[in-house]
Amino acid sequence: MPLHPDRLFPADPTTRAVARELYEQVRGLPLICPHGHVAASLLAENAQLPDPVALLVAPDHYLTRMLNSQGIEPSAVGAPRRDGVPVAEPRDAWRTFCAHWYLFRGTPSRLWLEQALEGVFGVRSDLGPDTADEVFDAISEKLATPQFRPRALFDSFNIEILATTDSPLDTLESHARLADEGYRGRVVPTFRPDDVIDPDRPGWADNVERLGKVAGQQISNYADYLTALKIRRSAFRAAGATATDHGHPTAATADLDQAEASRLFDRLRAGRAEPGDAELFRAQMLTESAAMSVDDGLVMQLHPGSVRDHVRPLFERYGRDAGGDIPAATEYVQALRPMLDRFGSEPKFRLVLFTLDESAYSRELAPLAGVYPAVFLGPPWWFFDSAEGIRRFRELTTETAGLYNTVGFNDDTRALASIPVRHDVARRLDCAFLAQLVAEHRLPIDEAQATAADLAYHLPRRGYRLDDEAHDRAARGAVA
Amino acid sequence: MPLHPDRLFPADPTTRAVARELYEQVRGLPLICPHGHVAASLLAENAQLPDPVALLVAPDHYLTRMLNSQGIEPSAVGAPRRDGVPVAEPRDAWRTFCAHWYLFRGTPSRLWLEQALEGVFGVRSDLGPDTADEVFDAISEKLATPQFRPRALFDSFNIEILATTDSPLDTLESHARLADEGYRGRVVPTFRPDDVIDPDRPGWADNVERLGKVAGQQISNYADYLTALKIRRSAFRAAGATATDHGHPTAATADLDQAEASRLFDRLRAGRAEPGDAELFRAQMLTESAAMSVDDGLVMQLHPGSVRDHVRPLFERYGRDAGGDIPAATEYVQALRPMLDRFGSEPKFRLVLFTLDESAYSRELAPLAGVYPAVFLGPPWWFFDSAEGIRRFRELTTETAGLYNTVGFNDDTRALASIPVRHDVARRLDCAFLAQLVAEHRLPIDEAQATAADLAYHLPRRGYRLDDEAHDRAARGAVA
Amino acid sequence: MPLHPDRLFPADPTTRAVARELYEQVRGLPLICPHGHVAASLLAENAQLPDPVALLVAPDHYLTRMLNSQGIEPSAVGAPRRDGVPVAEPRDAWRTFCAHWYLFRGTPSRLWLEQALEGVFGVRSDLGPDTADEVFDAISEKLATPQFRPRALFDSFNIEILATTDSPLDTLESHARLADEGYRGRVVPTFRPDDVIDPDRPGWADNVERLGKVAGQQISNYADYLTALKIRRSAFRAAGATATDHGHPTAATADLDQAEASRLFDRLRAGRAEPGDAELFRAQMLTESAAMSVDDGLVMQLHPGSVRDHVRPLFERYGRDAGGDIPAATEYVQALRPMLDRFGSEPKFRLVLFTLDESAYSRELAPLAGVYPAVFLGPPWWFFDSAEGIRRFRELTTETAGLYNTVGFNDDTRALASIPVRHDVARRLDCAFLAQLVAEHRLPIDEAQATAADLAYHLPRRGYRLDDEAHDRAARGAVA
Repeated sequence: MPLHPDRLFPADPTTRAVARELYEQVRGLPLICPHGHVAASLLAENAQLPDPVALLVAPDHYLTRMLNSQGIEPSAVGAPRRDGVPVAEPRDAWRTFCAHWYLFRGTPSRLWLEQALEGVFGVRSDLGPDTADEVFDAISEKLATPQFRPRALFDSFNIEILATTDSPLDTLESHARLADEGYRGRVVPTFRPDDVIDPDRPGWADNVERLGKVAGQQISNYADYLTALKIRRSAFRAAGATATDHGHPTAATADLDQAEASRLFDRLRAGRAEPGDAELFRAQMLTESAAMSVDDGLVMQLHPGSVRDHVRPLFERYGRDAGGDIPAATEYVQALRPMLDRFGSEPKFRLVLFTLDESAYSRELAPLAGVYPAVFLGPPWWFFDSAEGIRRFRELTTETAGLYNTVGFNDDTRALASIPVRHDVARRLDCAFLAQLVAEHRLPIDEAQATAADLAYHLPRRGYRLDDEAHDRAARGAVA
Repeated sequence: MPLHPDRLFPADPTTRAVARELYEQVRGLPLICPHGHVAASLLAENAQLPDPVALLVAPDHYLTRMLNSQGIEPSAVGAPRRDGVPVAEPRDAWRTFCAHWYLFRGTPSRLWLEQALEGVFGVRSDLGPDTADEVFDAISEKLATPQFRPRALFDSFNIEILATTDSPLDTLESHARLADEGYRGRVVPTFRPDDVIDPDRPGWADNVERLGKVAGQQISNYADYLTALKIRRSAFRAAGATATDHGHPTAATADLDQAEASRLFDRLRAGRAEPGDAELFRAQMLTESAAMSVDDGLVMQLHPGSVRDHVRPLFERYGRDAGGDIPAATEYVQALRPMLDRFGSEPKFRLVLFTLDESAYSRELAPLAGVYPAVFLGPPWWFFDSAEGIRRFRELTTETAGLYNTVGFNDDTRALASIPVRHDVARRLDCAFLAQLVAEHRLPIDEAQATAADLAYHLPRRGYRLDDEAHDRAARGAVA
Repeated sequence: MPLHPDRLFPADPTTRAVARELYEQVRGLPLICPHGHVAASLLAENAQLPDPVALLVAPDHYLTRMLNSQGIEPSAVGAPRRDGVPVAEPRDAWRTFCAHWYLFRGTPSRLWLEQALEGVFGVRSDLGPDTADEVFDAISEKLATPQFRPRALFDSFNIEILATTDSPLDTLESHARLADEGYRGRVVPTFRPDDVIDPDRPGWADNVERLGKVAGQQISNYADYLTALKIRRSAFRAAGATATDHGHPTAATADLDQAEASRLFDRLRAGRAEPGDAELFRAQMLTESAAMSVDDGLVMQLHPGSVRDHVRPLFERYGRDAGGDIPAATEYVQALRPMLDRFGSEPKFRLVLFTLDESAYSRELAPLAGVYPAVFLGPPWWFFDSAEGIRRFRELTTETAGLYNTVGFNDDTRALASIPVRHDVARRLDCAFLAQLVAEHRLPIDEAQATAADLAYHLPRRGYRLDDEAHDRAARGAVA
């Protein structure tokens, strides 16, 4: 169906009118994308984007996991297998996908894709078996034009800043290339050290070795290791980074003395780990990372609570991040205490918390963000970046944490073409939430207007220190 | 009050109009009852139903537990005591019940009973002290007529299929009798092996002994025990069963090697259980049951997380299932991993999950159902089979699991007369949910219409393999 | 903005009209305040209230914690420091507060303060930097008048009864003084024994010593200790108390035999505590307190699940209860079993449960209250005494526990001036909830009207045994 201008607004006419009014003010604001998974190389290379399936379906976990749940393997919609077994051709994959489009009724995937098809590709046909070929051709045609090259899309989407997510082992060549070219789009890296911090990652010891090489710091012991991390953070900052990111099984933090931490590091590196060592090391490294953030000002993000690779055949055939991750209950209050005891009230420290356990919103996360100067709430993550998820987030956190201990929206997407859609959905839903406050006389309209703009634009800039122009200029100068 | 045709629909006029339109299409669809607790003997015997109290109040836990919470013991509303202490006479019991009817304001019990009184018995008076006798007499009069015999009700309710819940020790004589008579109503058993699988059940060892007898398989060891279970499953399938059901304290599963499982079985049977043995055995038996389902196609249902008989006086005076059960927090992600590692992606396996812990909906259950081919979500169970409960279920699961990884509605009732009411309430609430999606332009009306019919009729048939006509015919042939 | 008469009512016109009608009936009912933290000395002394900051800002955790979360220390809004470091002067503090008023958008603090400013102080200006001085002066002027002395406010607020919260070590002199004077306002104490029951409290052993002195009962052993507690309960009852209150880290209860409990007490008192002893002792004391309640009829309140003093600098500079407490997940079903096994079905016992873990509402608390005669649900506590919090509470508990296993509203406030506001907000929200039931044809309007009055007035009186006139007269007689 053609997109309705009032989509996602409450049905009540009074509330809807307010939502519409608020949205009109924020719909055109530039996009701030402080946390996502688009690769810098995409923009550096600026090549033609691939076919509709490789662009929109095969790499999208939301889509492949739902299809898998109904017995349609990812390979049937074109996802490449690790073992090289051939997968469906693009057009066949697209037909299969369209034949199962009804599975996405009521899901955010449906909202995003419909809006991307119409808003980005100008396709107004309903998706389904009858229209599969027509839509495939229409998208393919667009993708072949210069207006659909990555940089052209970046411009047309009105993206003010785009943060990528990168390993410390990444030498940030694409970022450097963009800077060298004087590319006017602001694209900055994010320091995501999981593969050198988490001893349970395959190849961790090798990664530590490589870290030393990339940093130019021989790693003989724990102190060297911390130095190497600091060197890489410094390089990331020079490339414009304002944030780090950590994806851990739990939110556990620890505050070991340096001797104990050193022994722990040595045991792990030597392959003599005892039970609990890996978890303790991750916990310690969160606190060490916080200490580094106090020094260098990088905003720290924590995404805990995902049980990775739960679905064995998906992992075996498609590898990590293939849609088989499942959330688990996540405790924050005791887990974060060692770190917050040290740095929770440090003015320079900033910790943005995410969750896949919505029961923690009102019980733990809003109270923590609502009292600690350092703690902020990230937007609803992953499964909860959705109409109901965003509504629950605001309803469950605002009364205790307020709106100003949140950092606006993250699109968190791998797909460049989905960026404007995701922001638009979030803006609509935040306006719908504020409209309810106005309609119930809990907030006057002028304050709702100011708040809508803050949520859409100013809070992510401030929350991720993207408005620190001095820092920004210095960093860019260092690269360019 | 007389039932309002728009009851349970949202107040907003736009949304209500859509809900009404959707509901008109599904209200008359036949009832699929794949999980309930009506006894087959009720239909086999087709005797006159008892008095209003014995029919509607005394056996209804929802009612007796609420009354008990305000100091009115179940015996005061006619529930028989284990110790034979006399209980209130029907008319007195009914008066007591009506005098406390105000306690049920805002509860599903009120909705169900009001709708049953008007819809089934044609009683339009408000319940209360003043009308108690009049209503008692009106119901009693109806019950004495042939139109209120069980089979007549079954027909008038438009029930297409009714699944009972039965122990493997049950010889299914009532089912056989119905089949022998050529009864045209489709009534099938469900294989519920808790009393032979759960070592914490009183008399478990004796039950295992009896299982051997009923199956005609001497049980000397674990292998014999599994064989006996398979024999009984086969008999259930021959009587039309398409499903099993498991009520466990937790969702724990295990995947022991056969030698270890054998030793565990022997220890338990010999009364030499060690701490944790009973839980481990239950866990192992869930995985064994899954393996059997892969072979014989019986859909597996799991109802975990109820702490049984929490209220001591209720248990002591009225026995099991007397309303004193309380939910507990329930973990699924680690608990189900051993079973799902083996069978979660098996095309023939189907696992329908239930919960009494709503915090698991969005965190664990929807993500599991939204990726594993074998996993489906059962409808809101027990305390959550209600207006708010059904709304929360759809809001918390749809965005991640979609609507097509659910299996429609279960009435789960012991009371034949309540069946149409329960389905009607669920249909209204699902239509209300879909209407909101339509009103917020998240789903076009034609797709909402198709989905409403799927939720009301097609999904339970498919989800419980009740549309497998070949299986059905074969099974019936084997019995008749 | 001037307060809108429809504030907090749903936007849908039909539902709003019903809410308005219900609210008109209850808005003027006397206030029942069975649980709060206003000191009796405030009324006994009846001195002029302090300046606006000392009255409304500095002692309000909701305000100071939010400000702290954005880097504004409590001392900047006038909160006194333990170490005597000087803090902001009232007018400066007020300006700082007003400059950050935007932080409270969408919070209950904003609703309460706006309503108190207009409703109590007649101030209609918006709060903000521009109006700070004007509002400060307006409030100050009012506070200097006799109509703003505590007893005058008490009368003008239409408070029927006010319960304070007091340690067993408190000799209740202010209560006695009010009684001696024949003060016509009903002000009763509440027995809150945490500081003599919880071995983790600083100075616990000394407190036990002092308890003996205050009770006139030498405490040589556990039996003496229990006797001393009973003596103090008796004194509290004589001063009009109808309830006790317990603030514990968890809801754990225990039922030790007396010999074991005695040894535990002796170990703790002698400073020879073993790990787990303090928790076990608290657990045991809850059950002992329940036993005493069975004897003396004091209603028992339990507020578990707050991790105290999580924010180290707040505790170090401002002491306990300075806004740095954070909720934690709280288990009730197993925890309360030892106590409920003994007393859960005792007609004389009444246990009012509170929570900071909303996931327990539908899973544990509503089922417990909906079956145990002794168990009732307290209103939403602390962070959840709010528009969304009250709505969630009713939606999550009503279907299982009904409305009549709740005890209406507690204002739970330290601030006399906020009492009418808090009740008004709660009454509006309960009416909004009932209005939705009416609008969806789940409850007829006449029953909703009766229920609204019950929730606002009759249930707190009954729930806290404040309508037990015999008890009341006897108790007052004994004091006067």
